[in-house]
Amino acid sequence: MNIGSYSYDEYVHVVESFHGSLAPGLLIGGFIVDLALKKLPHGEFFDAICETEICLPDAVQLLTPCTIGNGWLRVLDFGRFAVTLYEKTGGEGVRVYLDMEKLNAWDEVNSWYWKLKKKPEQDYQLLLSQIREAGYGMLSVQRVRVEPEKLRREKLGASAVCPECGEAYPTKHGNRCRACQGESPYIEVTSTLL
Amino acid sequence: MNIGSYSYDEYVHVVESFHGSLAPGLLIGGFIVDLALKKLPHGEFFDAICETEICLPDAVQLLTPCTIGNGWLRVLDFGRFAVTLYEKTGGEGVRVYLDMEKLNAWDEVNSWYWKLKKKPEQDYQLLLSQIREAGYGMLSVQRVRVEPEKLRREKLGASAVCPECGEAYPTKHGNRCRACQGESPYIEVTSTLL
Repeated sequence: MNIGSYSYDEYVHVVESFHGSLAPGLLIGGFIVDLALKKLPHGEFFDAICETEICLPDAVQLLTPCTIGNGWLRVLDFGRFAVTLYEKTGGEGVRVYLDMEKLNAWDEVNSWYWKLKKKPEQDYQLLLSQIREAGYGMLSVQRVRVEPEKLRREKLGASAVCPECGEAYPTKHGNRCRACQGESPYIEVTSTLL
Repeated sequence: MNIGSYSYDEYVHVVESFHGSLAPGLLIGGFIVDLALKKLPHGEFFDAICETEICLPDAVQLLTPCTIGNGWLRVLDFGRFAVTLYEKTGGEGVRVYLDMEKLNAWDEVNSWYWKLKKKPEQDYQLLLSQIREAGYGMLSVQRVRVEPEKLRREKLGASAVCPECGEAYPTKHGNRCRACQGESPYIEVTSTLL
């Protein structure tokens, strides 16, 4: 059983290295993305949608050319465990999701997903082995069509120097940058010498 | 000159492999993140803020343990070319940003950043070599304090099966999932056999 271009064990290693831990969601996510890649017509340019921000975006980033930084991955905060890969121009795509009925057959995964047990009561090794054994067995597939324009990252447009902080910002945000408009997450800022 | 734990050439290779292209912003981003890591007190647990969604988040994901999927990286849509690494609990951190005054000294990088030349008129090799030569020379550093609570990813909370699509979703979103509330990006959905 391979995950993308990795063997299962290689994928486990890559997940630990990139994500910082062997999150069960990223193992399921590996099968989700792998299946979506297999169902997508070969060789086309595609973009990705991830319908949760938890864990799953990292499976997409590790297994496809789509990342947050290059704009080919969009994360929608639906809280659904699903990934869609779709052709950039026409919008034809494949959506793979964790199927709640199929999940029922894998008791340790099911109780992990629905948080039916407290952490110390979970059998982590059983959880991992059920995920591996299940493979595609917890997943279902849909053909979808998306509106690519709706999902395309907005163009940055013209930039200017913010009159308050002196940094470059997109003028579409207004006459100063959003941080200086009150959205800054910083309580204190002190300049330091390099 | 190293970038994180990579040599410069290794970092270039990793960027091409992960991001899909050798984006100049990711090379500058490499120096930004590298400098932030150096200025951060060693060995602490930290989270990351990236103040633009363009390119720079991938530098954070490649060079720190912080990713979109593990929730340690937050992307703020300020359009400022800056990264902050901050201690998870106290909020003390370091912010490194592209300094517009210093950028002036590097004409090809400056004209690339401000889009002063059309693509065919840009000298890509000169751009890359100026970025490499400049290193930290285009950057400035601030000590900052953030409110960690403000930036922490909201807990998923309780989940339920959506009565329309049958998938799991967070009940804090309402009595059905957001996709079924009209936010779905899909025009057509057809179930297929695995």
